[in-house]
Amino acid sequence: MAWNTDLRWRLPLTCLLLQVALVVLFGVFVRYNPDADAHWVEDKQHANSSSDLDNEFYYRYPSFQDVHVMIFVGFGFLMTFLQRYGYSSVGFNFLLAAFGIQWALLMQGWFHSYQDGYILVGVENLINADFCVGSVCVAFGAILGKVSPIQLLVMTLFQVTLFSVNEFILLSLLEVKDAGGSMTIHTFGAYFGLTVTWILYRPNLYQSKERQSPVYHSDLFAMIGTLFLWMYWPSFNSAVSNHGDAQHRAAINTYCSLAACVLTAVALSSALHKKGKLDMVHIQNATLAGGVAVGTAAEMMLMPYGSLIVGFICGIVSTLGFVYLTPFLESKLRIQDTCGIHNLHGIPGIIGGIVGAVTAACASSEVYGQQGLAHAFDFEQHNINWSSSMQGSFQAAGIFVSLAMALVGGIIVGIILKLPIWGQPADENCFDDAIYWEVPEEHTIYVSHPEDPNLKPSEP
Amino acid sequence: MAWNTDLRWRLPLTCLLLQVALVVLFGVFVRYNPDADAHWVEDKQHANSSSDLDNEFYYRYPSFQDVHVMIFVGFGFLMTFLQRYGYSSVGFNFLLAAFGIQWALLMQGWFHSYQDGYILVGVENLINADFCVGSVCVAFGAILGKVSPIQLLVMTLFQVTLFSVNEFILLSLLEVKDAGGSMTIHTFGAYFGLTVTWILYRPNLYQSKERQSPVYHSDLFAMIGTLFLWMYWPSFNSAVSNHGDAQHRAAINTYCSLAACVLTAVALSSALHKKGKLDMVHIQNATLAGGVAVGTAAEMMLMPYGSLIVGFICGIVSTLGFVYLTPFLESKLRIQDTCGIHNLHGIPGIIGGIVGAVTAACASSEVYGQQGLAHAFDFEQHNINWSSSMQGSFQAAGIFVSLAMALVGGIIVGIILKLPIWGQPADENCFDDAIYWEVPEEHTIYVSHPEDPNLKPSEP
Amino acid sequence: MAWNTDLRWRLPLTCLLLQVALVVLFGVFVRYNPDADAHWVEDKQHANSSSDLDNEFYYRYPSFQDVHVMIFVGFGFLMTFLQRYGYSSVGFNFLLAAFGIQWALLMQGWFHSYQDGYILVGVENLINADFCVGSVCVAFGAILGKVSPIQLLVMTLFQVTLFSVNEFILLSLLEVKDAGGSMTIHTFGAYFGLTVTWILYRPNLYQSKERQSPVYHSDLFAMIGTLFLWMYWPSFNSAVSNHGDAQHRAAINTYCSLAACVLTAVALSSALHKKGKLDMVHIQNATLAGGVAVGTAAEMMLMPYGSLIVGFICGIVSTLGFVYLTPFLESKLRIQDTCGIHNLHGIPGIIGGIVGAVTAACASSEVYGQQGLAHAFDFEQHNINWSSSMQGSFQAAGIFVSLAMALVGGIIVGIILKLPIWGQPADENCFDDAIYWEVPEEHTIYVSHPEDPNLKPSEP
Repeated sequence: MAWNTDLRWRLPLTCLLLQVALVVLFGVFVRYNPDADAHWVEDKQHANSSSDLDNEFYYRYPSFQDVHVMIFVGFGFLMTFLQRYGYSSVGFNFLLAAFGIQWALLMQGWFHSYQDGYILVGVENLINADFCVGSVCVAFGAILGKVSPIQLLVMTLFQVTLFSVNEFILLSLLEVKDAGGSMTIHTFGAYFGLTVTWILYRPNLYQSKERQSPVYHSDLFAMIGTLFLWMYWPSFNSAVSNHGDAQHRAAINTYCSLAACVLTAVALSSALHKKGKLDMVHIQNATLAGGVAVGTAAEMMLMPYGSLIVGFICGIVSTLGFVYLTPFLESKLRIQDTCGIHNLHGIPGIIGGIVGAVTAACASSEVYGQQGLAHAFDFEQHNINWSSSMQGSFQAAGIFVSLAMALVGGIIVGIILKLPIWGQPADENCFDDAIYWEVPEEHTIYVSHPEDPNLKPSEP
Repeated sequence: MAWNTDLRWRLPLTCLLLQVALVVLFGVFVRYNPDADAHWVEDKQHANSSSDLDNEFYYRYPSFQDVHVMIFVGFGFLMTFLQRYGYSSVGFNFLLAAFGIQWALLMQGWFHSYQDGYILVGVENLINADFCVGSVCVAFGAILGKVSPIQLLVMTLFQVTLFSVNEFILLSLLEVKDAGGSMTIHTFGAYFGLTVTWILYRPNLYQSKERQSPVYHSDLFAMIGTLFLWMYWPSFNSAVSNHGDAQHRAAINTYCSLAACVLTAVALSSALHKKGKLDMVHIQNATLAGGVAVGTAAEMMLMPYGSLIVGFICGIVSTLGFVYLTPFLESKLRIQDTCGIHNLHGIPGIIGGIVGAVTAACASSEVYGQQGLAHAFDFEQHNINWSSSMQGSFQAAGIFVSLAMALVGGIIVGIILKLPIWGQPADENCFDDAIYWEVPEEHTIYVSHPEDPNLKPSEP
Repeated sequence: MAWNTDLRWRLPLTCLLLQVALVVLFGVFVRYNPDADAHWVEDKQHANSSSDLDNEFYYRYPSFQDVHVMIFVGFGFLMTFLQRYGYSSVGFNFLLAAFGIQWALLMQGWFHSYQDGYILVGVENLINADFCVGSVCVAFGAILGKVSPIQLLVMTLFQVTLFSVNEFILLSLLEVKDAGGSMTIHTFGAYFGLTVTWILYRPNLYQSKERQSPVYHSDLFAMIGTLFLWMYWPSFNSAVSNHGDAQHRAAINTYCSLAACVLTAVALSSALHKKGKLDMVHIQNATLAGGVAVGTAAEMMLMPYGSLIVGFICGIVSTLGFVYLTPFLESKLRIQDTCGIHNLHGIPGIIGGIVGAVTAACASSEVYGQQGLAHAFDFEQHNINWSSSMQGSFQAAGIFVSLAMALVGGIIVGIILKLPIWGQPADENCFDDAIYWEVPEEHTIYVSHPEDPNLKPSEP
């Protein structure tokens, strides 16, 4: 198929239209919340807080910045492993995330921060907007290299909307706890992306096979993404937890789970290679599965050894997925999953949901203290209608709701993206920056001689 | 012209002399401020603060670290886009910033933290020193590739001095608000750098034309710089704002402006290419203009939609500047602006100054509250001499003062740097690391065979 | 010697065994400390603290994340300078650190956080575990390229154990202050690593000489490591200091020392090259020596000028070490120090210990205040048995204890690592990722033509 990939008017118009709409909607709806508003002394007295330090900003801002790095550098560079798709990986991720966070501020705002006709935003909204976009970055991994930037903007528009609805159902209707987003971000994002790539199946993708592999330095760029995701994941899972012990505990649990995950991912990577060699794909991805899988339970009393066990299992499952499941999905189910998000976000996301449900179901006042239990699960202390087993059931229901939303939404959005109007690349031009980017000509490589600063071209 | 580029004695002597002078001046002048001094209990009681948490450190340190990353990794890597100038971009930026922050601690200290014969430093001084050096990094962008490290040290010495004088005039005499430095950092830095490069005009620069373009991986290195600047800019604009709501608001406004800026920069980049392709130069630079342009107003009640509008405009203006204005400046005005700082810092800096003046002129007690207004603009609450329109006028005056300081200072410093004694490169050797660095010989590239770990050289 | 480098069963079994043991030990011993435990209201009342903000988390978490980045990105990328060892540098560092932090939580926990049969962990334990692993990363630098990942895991197991014993002797028995670890981390880590590489001496290492040099882009990757270490070092040295002024002061001192160190490292690098050119090795390493050398004294009243002097000296000494000492150690003492850790961590670590001893010996109540002195050095205020000269002597003793532990421990661990069972590479295969990693074939480099997105292979 010879689609027209010249985006000259379509991409600018899409961007400008979206941005104008955002400006108008922000003008109508978005204001600062009291912690960010200048009515400082008066409001402070109302809120009965004595110090500037009680401003939510100081509880959450460092975590926000870490999450911000994960979305833009973490996801962006993680996907630069392809030899000739680095501009697009980093650049399109940048574009879709910049659009997505604005749209998410509105969508999540209407559901969670709407008051007297206004969305009142503060640092927690910024974190949640980044989280929401994180699920789009996950889905991007499945379709990486096979879509145009317009398709990505369209997908972001719909996915952020669906994310917000799903999140509202889980957090507000089912009253599920999911601070690190195993269900809302990873399970939803992964199965949404897999469904979209299934709809967009390209039977002749082998035509761009030679560009689907990395080169040496592109793998090192990808490790920048991996490491910033890995290092800052404790901030991700603790960023919107309750102040104090919950944030503290979420960081510890995530740290433990991720550490264990590295060892089992390395073990499996070596064990599954005929000469025992390690595979960069596993190191770049499977080492992160432990962070995904404690997303729900990290703030609960999972215990450090519980976190280690979760990480242990996920390193193994995720690496096995890369070796056996991804090829199977592609050849049998026609699901072309460029980055293997099923192994990094899909299965670990579901595991995370289950771990969260089990941990919640086991919560008791012996472990949490009487007040601690009410505080941790957000119910009135003497509410006799709350029980941990009920919480566990609702948590489990959250997994299924997320999966259903992802599948239905993914089918609809996939069909929209299949329309031949978005400037998508032909099969033989996939995974190539040169379709959408000015790329430098690199025929002539100039070589410096230490003794002679004048350069002469080497033979091409 | 055949200058002598052997720096063997000149560079070491310059570095050692400057550093010895700094040691002596620090010995005479610099001490810890009370929050960093060990006289802890006694002073704490004097200061009447009950908790260690009230230490300024906890309000500012996370922002400081983000700013620090912007100066060293952000600016350093942003300039690695040139194919053979990565060592110098990162390395010289490292050198000038390491010198500049020490000299800035002194210069800014004398103006703002001088007490009883001593400069009392704390974390806010560290941030301000980084800010000051930020303006030097901006100016470096204009002359990148065409100067020696000695010239950079000399320029830093003078520019930090002028920066501090200009900052004193604006902040202390005109009582202007400029927390994110649209005027003091960006406008001043950009027009200073442009004036210097105008004085240093090289008519035969085309002789090193082939090295003025990027290679594939150098563009990815540059994206590391772009993204760390983009992500941490909310910290930059909020780092020295008042505690509480002002810091909080500055971060939100900057986040919004930057997000909008990405979409319009992408739109224009595509619209201005004959096949609609994106240009890495715009993605690396124009996406940041929104951060520059809310530098003054971010801590004010600019409102989220106001921030979006500022970002919207700057993404467009900055990209247009790269496409039309930079070539014009070079061919008609003989201003060779290597990184296009006029589009990233110059125009957006002036826009930022104007936005700040207008926002200040519109400040009212309805929006800020009575006490909030006095707090936000630092005047006694019942001072009837203060009016928002007056504040707006002084803000506007700050732009012109900064421009005048930049132009006059830039001419003087440019003339000094033109002296043929600093080891500057000849026109045909510009943009080449090999002049000032040991660079690895890369004739023989060793290629690994997955099946055979023994290496054999490929043909050169 | 033709060792078997196929790790297929050995590496997986090692990883899985270690991780299972860690899970069991965590299950038996590790629990949350009160600040991270959900028994929130009850415990909060016991602790008599009124606000969530008093949670240790908010004092230490931002510093923890900075330290975390230093260990994984800082050390990992610093070692990517070799042309064909980037996967191993980043990947093996990732593996050993992920194992090491878990084992360190246990070892350090038994010594310092053991209570009623449990190790109670919180954010400070996470920082200390990262610190402990930092010393392993240091030692890794000496043997980089010459060992298998199994050897690294074995070394980590022993080194973390010895580190914890040494740290216990210094901090708990000698009551030494060493917040930034000049002695416990750098001196111990460096001389341990140097002893191990001395035992593992490879007389025929010249056979892989061609891979011991960098290529252009590998040096830029290494600068990512350098800069993140440099920028976050103020957090490293202040992360576990006392709340308030001590943390604040440690950050300021480290900032100053590092800045001065850059200028003198550059000066010496240029002065020692026959044409005055800079050497990337010095910029990547010697610029960091100032951070190492204020590790002990940064939290003391070293004064900003004192910090500058320390940085000044270390930039010189470290660069001289790279030029003269490293070749001497290799040719005369048969110590093959791949990254030159002796110059970055060894000598500066000892200097740091001495500076700390002298600064402590000079501590007086005039400078610290009466209560400040007791607080800074952790003794009862009216304890007449404490004197600053005694503190200084104990500090000095700490250097010798660390050296002795490093040498004895290094010999034992070196002998263990010399056993021919760990899959170490042959001399001609050192510094080559292809032994332990799947590496992409790079015979055919595809070149994009801006005008023609279809790719054609260039000649190999």
